Amino acid sequence: MKANLADQNPLPVSFADVEAAAKRLQGKAFKTPVLTSQTVNKQTNSQVFFKCENFQRTGSFKFRGACNALMQLSETEKRQGVVTFSSGNHGQAIALAAQLLAIPVTVVMPTDAPKVKQEATRGYGAEIVLYDRTQVSREELTAKIAEEQHLTIIPPYDDARVIAGQGTAALELIAEVGELDLLLVCCGGGGLLSGSAIAAKTLSPRCKVIGVEPEQADDAARSFRTKTLQTVNNPDTIADGARTPSLGKLTFPLVLHYVDDMATVSEEAIRTTMFFMWERMKIVVEPTGVLAAAALLSGVVKAKNQRVGVIVSGGNVDLREVDRFF
Amino acid sequence: MKANLADQNPLPVSFADVEAAAKRLQGKAFKTPVLTSQTVNKQTNSQVFFKCENFQRTGSFKFRGACNALMQLSETEKRQGVVTFSSGNHGQAIALAAQLLAIPVTVVMPTDAPKVKQEATRGYGAEIVLYDRTQVSREELTAKIAEEQHLTIIPPYDDARVIAGQGTAALELIAEVGELDLLLVCCGGGGLLSGSAIAAKTLSPRCKVIGVEPEQADDAARSFRTKTLQTVNNPDTIADGARTPSLGKLTFPLVLHYVDDMATVSEEAIRTTMFFMWERMKIVVEPTGVLAAAALLSGVVKAKNQRVGVIVSGGNVDLREVDRFF
Repeated sequence: MKANLADQNPLPVSFADVEAAAKRLQGKAFKTPVLTSQTVNKQTNSQVFFKCENFQRTGSFKFRGACNALMQLSETEKRQGVVTFSSGNHGQAIALAAQLLAIPVTVVMPTDAPKVKQEATRGYGAEIVLYDRTQVSREELTAKIAEEQHLTIIPPYDDARVIAGQGTAALELIAEVGELDLLLVCCGGGGLLSGSAIAAKTLSPRCKVIGVEPEQADDAARSFRTKTLQTVNNPDTIADGARTPSLGKLTFPLVLHYVDDMATVSEEAIRTTMFFMWERMKIVVEPTGVLAAAALLSGVVKAKNQRVGVIVSGGNVDLREVDRFF
Repeated sequence: MKANLADQNPLPVSFADVEAAAKRLQGKAFKTPVLTSQTVNKQTNSQVFFKCENFQRTGSFKFRGACNALMQLSETEKRQGVVTFSSGNHGQAIALAAQLLAIPVTVVMPTDAPKVKQEATRGYGAEIVLYDRTQVSREELTAKIAEEQHLTIIPPYDDARVIAGQGTAALELIAEVGELDLLLVCCGGGGLLSGSAIAAKTLSPRCKVIGVEPEQADDAARSFRTKTLQTVNNPDTIADGARTPSLGKLTFPLVLHYVDDMATVSEEAIRTTMFFMWERMKIVVEPTGVLAAAALLSGVVKAKNQRVGVIVSGGNVDLREVDRFF
């Protein structure tokens, strides 16, 4: 069944693409640390390896995909510049990657995007275009700017170069710690999840790959089960990176092909896991960044006597807003 | 002058003691990671190595000294047990070290010590004795309990075994990254500072060692300058680990002999540095834990084109209290 799907529609990203991305990113993206916790190992009766993308440049894995995409633009495209529509981690990642590659970059952001995010993105040298999100569709505005100014749009997840770049985190993890029995990865638009699954299934063929979403934003879990693309609309979850309306045209078939299962976690599990990682592991992680860990620590996914990889996807939190998580 | 001081009163801790502590702690204390930050390197025009003791067991360097002290007790002392009077990092460190070594342990704490700290200490198997700090002197109560129950008191810093243990963090740092031009270390009672200085001056003889205190609790800086022991009384600083009234009988001569200079940092610099390390470096650090980094990042200590070691001493913060730091 799965093989058939691949036969009928050749998959858009292969392991060779992830390997090529890893080479391309050498000296550009950080090789992030892998942390372990005796408390977690005891509690889960497993050996757990946390791949800490919160330590990645711009504070999330997004820098990998952004940089891999920008490095493959033609010289003309690089000269003319790029545009993206993300006020979050992808926007900052594109802004820094473009700065490092001397590519002009425009980021389209809603007028109510937090000032700290606007400043961080501007700090990386991006031009910010603000829009009123009650009046304007960001996709339409971005397309209009791209057309008028001859800019290339770099989407946040539904792009083969972005997906291949995101897969390099799991590639690094398995290269460092060896084969795994289980890999847990958070899922928003599915870029990190599909990239990670491609890497894991090649480097550690018996490794089970499970994607994790908030219960409140379980579109990918429903899509996975029904094999039909499902959506959510502005879901009420603190994991803002998982509020994406659905998997993409590229990530959906990749998830169906490579991922073994999907799990969902409660808001309470996200909160508890986030505080555990802050207070006990002493690392700053954002709500979306702990989804994979939350599935394990809350017991939604059981993993006795296994070697478990957990991707910690990011750590961008405004500390002045911490009390809204209590 | 300094040589004379050492000649007249043989110093209580030598590098051999630190080396012996490092051997003793193998497999007990963690070898904590050394982190770097491109932003910090650019901002300071130096190469800065953060030795992250916030990742140490119990969340601070204190575990090193506690464990080194307990491992040197006689079999009788171990059987009878130990007592200490710290509601903070030393108390938790003694509690865990005693648990690992199967030594009975009593921790004397004020009735108003935060519930989380009481629970953490009890979680390590310690017996807690509460006292009303408006009525009772903790030193007297501890001495009374020690005498009545034949327990050994393990003081938080003024103890040769504790000092030697604390020196192992700097030893590990220099063993990992090589010789340094400058080492910055926070200073409360001076245990970490004197231990670090002993290690640095032996392993990297040209390394300048600077101790850092809050401006509000500058007793050690004044003691250093006047060569006479100065005190502070319950100083108003968020760096609670530096509220100790003075250097100790052992740490004062060690600081005078091995340390090159003392610096002080403002509360604002402590706060700013703490948020920088949380938000940009993605590590959870406590106010006292950032004192050394604050001296560098606020410009109080200049270090152009140098190789700089910074000890990050701990990361024990109750997140529910973060807003009191704003």
